[in-house]
Amino acid sequence: MLKLYSTRSSGNAYKVRLALAHLRLAFTEIEIDIFAGENRTPEFLALNPEGRVPLLQLEDGTILAESNAILFYLAEDTGLVPAGRRGRAEVLRWMFFEQNNHEPGIAQARFWLREVRGGRELRTHDVDRWMEEGYGALAIMERHLAGRAFFVGESLTVADLALYPHTLLAPEGDFDLAPFDNVRAWLNRVAAQPGHMPMDWRPLRYAA
Amino acid sequence: MLKLYSTRSSGNAYKVRLALAHLRLAFTEIEIDIFAGENRTPEFLALNPEGRVPLLQLEDGTILAESNAILFYLAEDTGLVPAGRRGRAEVLRWMFFEQNNHEPGIAQARFWLREVRGGRELRTHDVDRWMEEGYGALAIMERHLAGRAFFVGESLTVADLALYPHTLLAPEGDFDLAPFDNVRAWLNRVAAQPGHMPMDWRPLRYAA
Repeated sequence: MLKLYSTRSSGNAYKVRLALAHLRLAFTEIEIDIFAGENRTPEFLALNPEGRVPLLQLEDGTILAESNAILFYLAEDTGLVPAGRRGRAEVLRWMFFEQNNHEPGIAQARFWLREVRGGRELRTHDVDRWMEEGYGALAIMERHLAGRAFFVGESLTVADLALYPHTLLAPEGDFDLAPFDNVRAWLNRVAAQPGHMPMDWRPLRYAA
Repeated sequence: MLKLYSTRSSGNAYKVRLALAHLRLAFTEIEIDIFAGENRTPEFLALNPEGRVPLLQLEDGTILAESNAILFYLAEDTGLVPAGRRGRAEVLRWMFFEQNNHEPGIAQARFWLREVRGGRELRTHDVDRWMEEGYGALAIMERHLAGRAFFVGESLTVADLALYPHTLLAPEGDFDLAPFDNVRAWLNRVAAQPGHMPMDWRPLRYAA
């Protein structure tokens, strides 16, 4: 069975869990508590020397890293990845945007303010930069979603699944989504898709 | 013919020019001088509201954005992208690493120190962070390349083409590559591949 090394509060891990839910793939989930250093044990570093989650272990033991690469792997040849070459390029465009422009600001703000509870004062300069970058990314999403139901084409793709978790969680990083009508409508649309699962979803098979 | 909107000093644009060279695809190159604001003209913003290069315009007018998505588009079904699903996931893993862990530190340090010539003093905190992130990415590359000729499999892929430009240019951002033997050997190996072109390469057909 597929084995997912995941941290429940991680937006990047939620992406993969969402894709697995949509594709109705059974998997064993292994919770890695990064605040307890479980991503720094010799066992975990043997799987991924970078010490990062999520990791997906295939049945033959192969390890796949990087949430968006895992999403593309799982969804190739399914309705979540367009069949055409140009559509795949569009999907990848938004997935690279997510990793280069969206996640760095939004997820770091959330991690520092909400998970570490570090406050604004200790890292005012960084928090200001994360907010600026994050709002810039949200503005690009808002413009792109004008008149569109999903990021690429007419139905849900891995581009939506890649962008959904950190956008949903942005308010935990002090982002105000109120001005972003199209983004909020899109969040609701993604959550209303058949097969969608909330972040606290636990799969039927769960590692002890 | 393919039309590439490119900035000659941009590592992200060089990725696409490298892929086009390897694939021996003819293209028209339109130089966008971002320091002269040519990425902020109404004409350019009509092509890409984000005002970023590179952009690839296909013969039917379709615009593709994000350097790594363009690379994957151009190279699908060629030797630069593995034929197997797992190999494609590995290639995408390193391309997402490049956009999330590698380019942000290394390219921003180079842009500020070399292109803007802003110096360390005005942005000491940012430069320190870029250096730390960039050296972290180089260390991951150095470890991965131990005993490997290329990032994925036994031959050149778009993973190498995505990582090559900003690694080659890292010294312009004050990074010292001397401690990274495997990375330097890999840079030389990539540059020795048939079809490789240097950054100052100009294609035969060049827009007036």
